Amino acid sequence: MARWEPNARLRLVQAAIDLFGEQGYDSTTVAQIAERAGLTKTTFFRHFPDKREVLFAGQEEHGRLLAEGAAAAPETATPLEVVTAALDTLTGSFTPEQRAFGPRLMQVVDSHSELRERAAFKSLNLTTVLAAALRDRGVPDPAASLAAHLGAQAFSAAFARWITPANDRPLPDLARACLTELREASAALA
Amino acid sequence: MARWEPNARLRLVQAAIDLFGEQGYDSTTVAQIAERAGLTKTTFFRHFPDKREVLFAGQEEHGRLLAEGAAAAPETATPLEVVTAALDTLTGSFTPEQRAFGPRLMQVVDSHSELRERAAFKSLNLTTVLAAALRDRGVPDPAASLAAHLGAQAFSAAFARWITPANDRPLPDLARACLTELREASAALA
Repeated sequence: MARWEPNARLRLVQAAIDLFGEQGYDSTTVAQIAERAGLTKTTFFRHFPDKREVLFAGQEEHGRLLAEGAAAAPETATPLEVVTAALDTLTGSFTPEQRAFGPRLMQVVDSHSELRERAAFKSLNLTTVLAAALRDRGVPDPAASLAAHLGAQAFSAAFARWITPANDRPLPDLARACLTELREASAALA
Repeated sequence: MARWEPNARLRLVQAAIDLFGEQGYDSTTVAQIAERAGLTKTTFFRHFPDKREVLFAGQEEHGRLLAEGAAAAPETATPLEVVTAALDTLTGSFTPEQRAFGPRLMQVVDSHSELRERAAFKSLNLTTVLAAALRDRGVPDPAASLAAHLGAQAFSAAFARWITPANDRPLPDLARACLTELREASAALA
């Protein structure tokens, strides 16, 4: 990334979410997003393949953080303790900016079936990454994929709570609380 | 559906899967699929909006069957007994033709990220329908969405086993066995 484009990625995300909210996702072009961010189309395409991907910017990074957190858990950790460690690493990376544009981001995604599909795929990818990290630690299937699913669900639920205006708890606390709720529900079911 | 096009839907699905396998998904057109099936493009578009949707033909029907099965379970059924009833109704609807083209269908889907996204969304839709059916019966969240997830996972795992050449068990048996495995894994996790 060139030195004269500080925070280009974040500026592009913010510009895109502003424009999607103001004039709709379909009517917004990459050129408009770049212009609003004070950047060029070339810079846009250095960061994202298209306007859709701006909304799913963190996917690779999120997968990497989950895998790192899972790998760093103590050897004796149970599968759900590994998931907790993975969630701690992921949720610890979120910034106040992400909280601020969270509600508008979710609104845009919810209003387009193509974007909902993409979001479902992102969540599935995070589940896949986390399940692979659990298998690497010797957790067999289907326990690995179930534990990973609980982790992904806890993350989604915690994110949705975190971005509500009334919330004053940090994202990592919310994610741990959601995982506990899911574990209890899971025990009651089985 | 017109009387002179018996099994038009099934013929279109089979023609599409044949062509996707022979010449690739990207190179196959709706006109070619219709021609191979001995039907017109107009008939194609009476059944499917585009070639992609041929691969996800059953989605609405599958959701309807799950919801019907869940609604018909006895009042005293536990959440997982409701899921079992839903799976019984869904899996009982599958035909030998669907088993025969299952492996090629999965191969096409696995080889295209766009199709994998669509498949993830289909699975999410089935989970959503089943969770809604459970909530209608008074099962609270997150138990409803967890039980629905176990049902959708059991269905996917059972379908994958069913279409292997060595398998000689009916799909409903496999789905029940997969749900039991998932319930046990879930209990061990929690």
